Amino acid sequence: MAGVLTPQGQDFPRWYQEVIAKAQLAENGPVRGTMVIRPWGYAIWERLEAAIDERIKATGARNAYFPLLIPEAFLRREAEHVEGFSPELAVVTHGGGKELEEPVVVRPTSETIVNSSFARWISSYRDLPLLINQWANVVRWELRPRLFLRTSEFLWQEGHTAHATREDAHAYALRILDEVYAGAMSDELAIPVFRGRKTEREKFAGAEISWSCEGLMRDGKALQMGTSHELGQNFARAFGIRFADRDGQLRHVWQTSWGASTRLLGAMIMVHGDDHGLRVPPRLAPTQAIVLAARAGEGVIEGATTLVDELRGLGVRVELDDRLEISVGRRIVDHELRGVPLRIELGPRELATGEAVVAHRVSSSKETVALEGLAPRVRQMLADDQQELLRQATALRDGRTQRASTLQEAGEIARDGFARIPWRACGSGGEDRLAQAGISVRCLLRADQQPVDDPDDDAVEALLARAY
Amino acid sequence: MAGVLTPQGQDFPRWYQEVIAKAQLAENGPVRGTMVIRPWGYAIWERLEAAIDERIKATGARNAYFPLLIPEAFLRREAEHVEGFSPELAVVTHGGGKELEEPVVVRPTSETIVNSSFARWISSYRDLPLLINQWANVVRWELRPRLFLRTSEFLWQEGHTAHATREDAHAYALRILDEVYAGAMSDELAIPVFRGRKTEREKFAGAEISWSCEGLMRDGKALQMGTSHELGQNFARAFGIRFADRDGQLRHVWQTSWGASTRLLGAMIMVHGDDHGLRVPPRLAPTQAIVLAARAGEGVIEGATTLVDELRGLGVRVELDDRLEISVGRRIVDHELRGVPLRIELGPRELATGEAVVAHRVSSSKETVALEGLAPRVRQMLADDQQELLRQATALRDGRTQRASTLQEAGEIARDGFARIPWRACGSGGEDRLAQAGISVRCLLRADQQPVDDPDDDAVEALLARAY
Repeated sequence: MAGVLTPQGQDFPRWYQEVIAKAQLAENGPVRGTMVIRPWGYAIWERLEAAIDERIKATGARNAYFPLLIPEAFLRREAEHVEGFSPELAVVTHGGGKELEEPVVVRPTSETIVNSSFARWISSYRDLPLLINQWANVVRWELRPRLFLRTSEFLWQEGHTAHATREDAHAYALRILDEVYAGAMSDELAIPVFRGRKTEREKFAGAEISWSCEGLMRDGKALQMGTSHELGQNFARAFGIRFADRDGQLRHVWQTSWGASTRLLGAMIMVHGDDHGLRVPPRLAPTQAIVLAARAGEGVIEGATTLVDELRGLGVRVELDDRLEISVGRRIVDHELRGVPLRIELGPRELATGEAVVAHRVSSSKETVALEGLAPRVRQMLADDQQELLRQATALRDGRTQRASTLQEAGEIARDGFARIPWRACGSGGEDRLAQAGISVRCLLRADQQPVDDPDDDAVEALLARAY
Repeated sequence: MAGVLTPQGQDFPRWYQEVIAKAQLAENGPVRGTMVIRPWGYAIWERLEAAIDERIKATGARNAYFPLLIPEAFLRREAEHVEGFSPELAVVTHGGGKELEEPVVVRPTSETIVNSSFARWISSYRDLPLLINQWANVVRWELRPRLFLRTSEFLWQEGHTAHATREDAHAYALRILDEVYAGAMSDELAIPVFRGRKTEREKFAGAEISWSCEGLMRDGKALQMGTSHELGQNFARAFGIRFADRDGQLRHVWQTSWGASTRLLGAMIMVHGDDHGLRVPPRLAPTQAIVLAARAGEGVIEGATTLVDELRGLGVRVELDDRLEISVGRRIVDHELRGVPLRIELGPRELATGEAVVAHRVSSSKETVALEGLAPRVRQMLADDQQELLRQATALRDGRTQRASTLQEAGEIARDGFARIPWRACGSGGEDRLAQAGISVRCLLRADQQPVDDPDDDAVEALLARAY
């Protein structure tokens, strides 16, 4: 039977486009590079957003909101920063029917405007650390847009913090990387990530050190899934953010910024999706279980409705599919495309034997289960399938991650997976050569999983891959 | 003692500005008319947003996200709509370092871009009703900005729906007005509102009928707090949104749109605030109770911490104030400014007698309560104070709402409150004359609280007021 999707192995980019369209996750907006996130996609994002938000708040940060429109002059205050963003800016030149005296830019990120507030809010060491997060849309003009991965507008959270010392900023940037990002990616998205330090070539414009989480997609390419930056005192000097320290001295603050975006939905699609469609992690699935009234028959709709009510009462996000006018096959294809974790099929035969068929999207397996006592087991099934999804993704990633000792060998491996090579065997010279082959250093890391404080340390490895 | 704020009775607009600044709710952004929402203000908004979102979802609507940037040509498709918005548009003329071939506008509202998607998503009566909501920022260039009330960028939700019949659209528009808006305003914001129909002069550009919720502020001026529009088939025709009906005929859909914004925070400030600061409704307060360690003494911090832990365990949002280095008076002023509902004071004297002083922000009353068994009573206190706040706001509004029979009399009353006058005694001619005196018809309503289907019905009254 011909599938509803182009197989991944045949044309991965095409599969990606098709699954987004057919699962009704998103579509292109009329302005090039923009995106409409449809209800199914947005409901997944809402759950992911809530999970990340909870983790951010657990670190002590509070949410705030800063303006979309920024004076162009603000971006020029930090030289490297403006250089990093100027090719991507959307510029508003007219407002209220008139040409503006000074053009304003649509925020590509909010460091400059946040720090103009920080300069007013911070005066004493008692005001520190100041830990602020914002959920917002940002605009970076994209020449080669791809839904979720590179869009001219995307949704994200961006954190901005100020600290009294470099050490405190350093510790907080890593706490965000570990507890918020890597934690949510593993526990919610069921995606294992490598955490590491960006090279000088790859770091964020304006940062002293950038840290990132890197995931491996099913096509062997890496995706940067979240970044956390130590900004040093660059913005503090540009915006005059100083505090009176305990000794009465005025000092510039030390800062961090960090962000994760709707790009994470791209990762979910590309790590878990298969030739039948999406596989949404149970913790994020807007609908965790479909109760499918398979065929007409006495008591079928009633039995299905009872089960739905029971599951809902137990806190399971469940929907009834009673569209008997549509064939079972077509309905199953639809639920598989959308990646609903569990499908519970009930028909006259099942009712007669007091059983239901439970189909697991994650493991592609089916089991026949007694209706009696089924509902209380569903929560455990969902938890197990969440774990199974992470196990599969970890196996996939680990199976495609290999160590190499020479640059040439690493370049071969990195064609469809992660290559780990001693950084001293690569270096920025090797990095430049690899770039010409479309391979980049995703991050620097250590086998002992400690943060890379000194890139020149012998224990430091470079993680190489092709990347989105 | 001179207060920390200019008294409301002396200069209400100045009081408004001062309380926003001193309670750290918000501040002006660098681009004229934009706003920074600070953590205390944003945390209130987050709770209000969650409450409204829950009510919206209870009507069957789902959230989605549409692009910020809209082709200019889209706005021209519906003639009245473009006329209504063109003076307020922010226009992006440059993107990615180049001048754009076609300028794009920053959304002032999303009817046009949503409907360009609806035209693709809707083909059959089975697709209807389509009920979509979006939480987003919008930009409308403001010449006379005022924080929360009129800002060039604001946050809101905008709902967009399509129905098979005019009747279904009508019923849904009113359901949103009643269950979502009036319900949340009363139950969460503790603000009673009049619901009614906008006059032709006041309705939304592009709507056939606009409904609104109108609140009365402490200075006697009205504030439009939420609107729900019946769009008829205007946008359906402009964007070609048709469906095959049960009889096989292709028909245009009937639509609604509806929105409520950060302006609601302006209402909260102006309805509940007093000369000491904000009074945040307990249901929305990020911090519902402060446990204030009043003075140093053996066991004070420990006792306060124990109480905080106990309250937190009971689900109360509580903070400890143990800043003994700052005077009690100054700390109390601060908590009153921010409008924290309850303040529980503990000092050596209270500990000795096994009691605490509970100060209620809503009623400005204090009571001495036994520490034993205090925590379980706090939730009830908060619920009572929420009701008390609504009672006060209702009394204030009703005391300033009077019926009049002549236009002149109504004009007098509307100088600092709501005047209700038979619509036949006002009419659009009277409406135009009142406008010259700065008074507007906020909405048309009926004494029996039924929706105004026919403005010419004798039972219809006009609600007059000065307005923000």
